[in-house]
Amino acid sequence: MKALLFENSISIGKIPKPARKDGESLIKVLLAGICNTDLEIVRGYMGFKGVLGHEFIGIVEDSENHSLINKRVVSEINIGCGHCHFCINGLKRHCPNRSVVGILNHQGAFAQYISIPDSNLFIIPDNVSDEQAVFVEPLAAALEIFEQVKIYPSSQVAIVGDGKLALLILQVIQLTGCKCFLFGKHKEKLEIAAKFGAITSFAKKGSSQKFDIVIESSGKKEGFTFALNIIKPRGTIILKSTYQSNVSFNFAKIVIDEIHIIGSRCGPFEPAIFLLEKKFIQIDPLISKVFPFKDFIEAFTFAQKDNLKVLIDFK
Amino acid sequence: MKALLFENSISIGKIPKPARKDGESLIKVLLAGICNTDLEIVRGYMGFKGVLGHEFIGIVEDSENHSLINKRVVSEINIGCGHCHFCINGLKRHCPNRSVVGILNHQGAFAQYISIPDSNLFIIPDNVSDEQAVFVEPLAAALEIFEQVKIYPSSQVAIVGDGKLALLILQVIQLTGCKCFLFGKHKEKLEIAAKFGAITSFAKKGSSQKFDIVIESSGKKEGFTFALNIIKPRGTIILKSTYQSNVSFNFAKIVIDEIHIIGSRCGPFEPAIFLLEKKFIQIDPLISKVFPFKDFIEAFTFAQKDNLKVLIDFK
Repeated sequence: MKALLFENSISIGKIPKPARKDGESLIKVLLAGICNTDLEIVRGYMGFKGVLGHEFIGIVEDSENHSLINKRVVSEINIGCGHCHFCINGLKRHCPNRSVVGILNHQGAFAQYISIPDSNLFIIPDNVSDEQAVFVEPLAAALEIFEQVKIYPSSQVAIVGDGKLALLILQVIQLTGCKCFLFGKHKEKLEIAAKFGAITSFAKKGSSQKFDIVIESSGKKEGFTFALNIIKPRGTIILKSTYQSNVSFNFAKIVIDEIHIIGSRCGPFEPAIFLLEKKFIQIDPLISKVFPFKDFIEAFTFAQKDNLKVLIDFK
Repeated sequence: MKALLFENSISIGKIPKPARKDGESLIKVLLAGICNTDLEIVRGYMGFKGVLGHEFIGIVEDSENHSLINKRVVSEINIGCGHCHFCINGLKRHCPNRSVVGILNHQGAFAQYISIPDSNLFIIPDNVSDEQAVFVEPLAAALEIFEQVKIYPSSQVAIVGDGKLALLILQVIQLTGCKCFLFGKHKEKLEIAAKFGAITSFAKKGSSQKFDIVIESSGKKEGFTFALNIIKPRGTIILKSTYQSNVSFNFAKIVIDEIHIIGSRCGPFEPAIFLLEKKFIQIDPLISKVFPFKDFIEAFTFAQKDNLKVLIDFK
């Protein structure tokens, strides 16, 4: 089968179709999305080599679980050991022995086929399109914020970043009734945020306004420094960005102002699918371009240029 | 009056006795303690110049509030504006216009006299000695942890650091019934921690055991790196140390493991005094040496050598 391979650089190559193990389903990939994490991996993040990709929808071709066959599915990306403390408590995304699709010890989704444990799969309702379904994984990551911190309708919340994840987070936070601020650096993306209902602003060095909760989802190190500048004493900064390189800053502000910092990664899939089914989240404005698989290298370069979501069509 | 002055270096000098303003009490200092923050200020932290010192007990010589006169008092170090959102909500330690005794825009306690607003003063019960009373401020800082995070009797808690603050925090955490681990670098201090009831260990690069809550109170940048190595996924690191210089590290671990980091500074004085009155906290083992005021420079040098609490006797 064809796949996008990453060694020292990315290339389109041919590798064997994955063998379906017991308890797994063999999935024919329909559509996949390029995530910032994929771009970071190519810069060295996680030291991963092989087939990238973890945002996708596919159709089950082969499975012991007959109710899955021919169903459109998405996959939770963390594959747990199934018997540790975290797995038993429904938190396989923190299993110390986990593999992660396209990120850690498991082939990714930028290939014609992928084999994944049935317990990771979620069937997509008919009224959710393939394009929308590719956003289940990042939308779940946005929902993780609600698993970690209480946001009140009256909370003063700022989002740092205007990329695809930031624009998903914005829509999720707004479901609380909370009118968010969003700080970004791209005129056209800020316009999308404004259309969604945000109070938008270009991110300068500081801001006179201070916030109870700041969600750093810019993907840039400077985003964290900016977040520190606009957080209130005793406020909470939620870290959604992973950076390949180190970040250097003075801890004193965190101690003096008793700031909370919460790392936030993957989230729950079912509520994400539910919100898409209910049409509470707008996906179309978040898609920059759809490329056919044969133009994957070009698509990757396009994604690296600060565009919104870039999708790859495998059909 | 005589005072310890800090400009580019520390010296003993003579300055005018402070004029008592309306609503303030003039306090004759009896005994003061050298805090790590004082040592950091001498390295450049906060850019403070003048009379250092914020841990002290004194006797009120002059006040409009007659119930304070001749009483032994300690002082909350943050002096708020009295009318902002934080002050109104009892959080003057986060008032954006605050001054801080011996740290920010207010003369410190390393002087024969200090004048402080009555609303900052707490009368010390007779059964609490001067030596114990000097520890009210750092003990309150240790109690701040309970204002921020729930520690269960069954929580797995580690303290990083074996200095005076760490040994206070250890005693406070143990009040929950929780048997703490304490990682340090000084044999004799670890022995004190062990006597207090901690499971002690030399801090090496890592530890196979992981913890729900790690309290970084080493005062050293490496302490934070060590804390990151021993925290469980979804665990909480409480930052008690302020460092003068920047700290550089990779954020990815915080995001991937969804670590919480909570800055923690000053705490509530009344509960600290109550615990000392009830004799729940051992202070004597935490005192390295008491110097007379005339030997202050020598005392400061002694404190810089990783000793436990160094006290200055003004009597």
